[in-house]
Amino acid sequence: MTANDLKLYHSAASPNSRRVRIFLAEKGLTVPLVSIDLSKREQDSQAYRAINPRSLVPTLVLEDGTAIGEVLAIWRYFEDHYSSAPPLLGVTPKEKALVTMWERRAELEGFAAVMEGVRNAAPSLKGRAIAGPHGHEPLPVLVELSRQRIRDFFGDFDFRLAEAPFVAGEKFSVADITTLVTVDFAARSFDMPLPRNALALKRWYDNVSARPSTAA
Amino acid sequence: MTANDLKLYHSAASPNSRRVRIFLAEKGLTVPLVSIDLSKREQDSQAYRAINPRSLVPTLVLEDGTAIGEVLAIWRYFEDHYSSAPPLLGVTPKEKALVTMWERRAELEGFAAVMEGVRNAAPSLKGRAIAGPHGHEPLPVLVELSRQRIRDFFGDFDFRLAEAPFVAGEKFSVADITTLVTVDFAARSFDMPLPRNALALKRWYDNVSARPSTAA
Repeated sequence: MTANDLKLYHSAASPNSRRVRIFLAEKGLTVPLVSIDLSKREQDSQAYRAINPRSLVPTLVLEDGTAIGEVLAIWRYFEDHYSSAPPLLGVTPKEKALVTMWERRAELEGFAAVMEGVRNAAPSLKGRAIAGPHGHEPLPVLVELSRQRIRDFFGDFDFRLAEAPFVAGEKFSVADITTLVTVDFAARSFDMPLPRNALALKRWYDNVSARPSTAA
Repeated sequence: MTANDLKLYHSAASPNSRRVRIFLAEKGLTVPLVSIDLSKREQDSQAYRAINPRSLVPTLVLEDGTAIGEVLAIWRYFEDHYSSAPPLLGVTPKEKALVTMWERRAELEGFAAVMEGVRNAAPSLKGRAIAGPHGHEPLPVLVELSRQRIRDFFGDFDFRLAEAPFVAGEKFSVADITTLVTVDFAARSFDMPLPRNALALKRWYDNVSARPSTAA
């Protein structure tokens, strides 16, 4: 299905954009994409700030011009508007609650820790240690804290994936998307590949990475 | 409506628990409550850790014993399971996306900043600077960073509430609940009352605080 009345502003290099691209590929939805080049700081251009004053990608722009920021909000829009596509946020109230809980844990304990580590370590992000329009200088002490948090995340999710085939339980969901993007982000941008002893997490990772959507 | 088959573990002093209590009061739902005394560290007891191994409140326990942690997940359960109660997460796909976006901004830019500030400043939380089972020593430098982030939050949300009657637009939603709990939490626990010049935010606060649900 192609949603030609929408526009998704994204960046190939942005892990948050990838969370949306994988979601769309799993649903079989095609949305016109507009690339924002973060290396040229296009997100700070006047043209993009008119769309998203917080200078963040991704942003989904609806037919009536409404701009939706935040991955979770973009997912929510597609899940409810294209309800014939495969559900990724759960079906029953209990499933929906469990998917929400596990996706959130993956994001806050995993994804956000990698992001904080990268932003406080990367010289190119000087003055931008927190995403958004308010400048913050990096705090080197947060780099080590992030590493600790990621180690805990790997341990906790290895434990979880020893007891369930997917992060939120029996079915693939957005909780798997966020966990997968986090594992790749940690390995590629923060030099923290999966630990060798995280066998269940590694088995889950190999399984989920084989889905064609993850190339998105 | 009374949901006697559920149990909500909460603490009177916990701002995350308050987010759930206000939500239930707005919906007119009554759920059997079980108090966890944080001052006695009851959340670390073996009995409570069997329910929520992360030692966090609130937790919703379903009839079949499934434990749902995370405020957003608990809200989602009630919104979908008791669909005759007033909606607080939006009705149309566009509203749902905007509520998700604004609630998330209130939480990440406001609520989480106050929480980080309080946890890194409070001597009684030594070794527990990050919520959950993994101990972390407080970093005093984060207290000042939190103050900066809360000042930015007050400014950004004052701007927002000068253009819309409620945080997510025309209707009261969970975005207002999180913003209200954040404003009270900052004033009571982090000595950061609303700035005098935040006129729109103050007008919104007075209006929303007058709702009976906020006593919950």
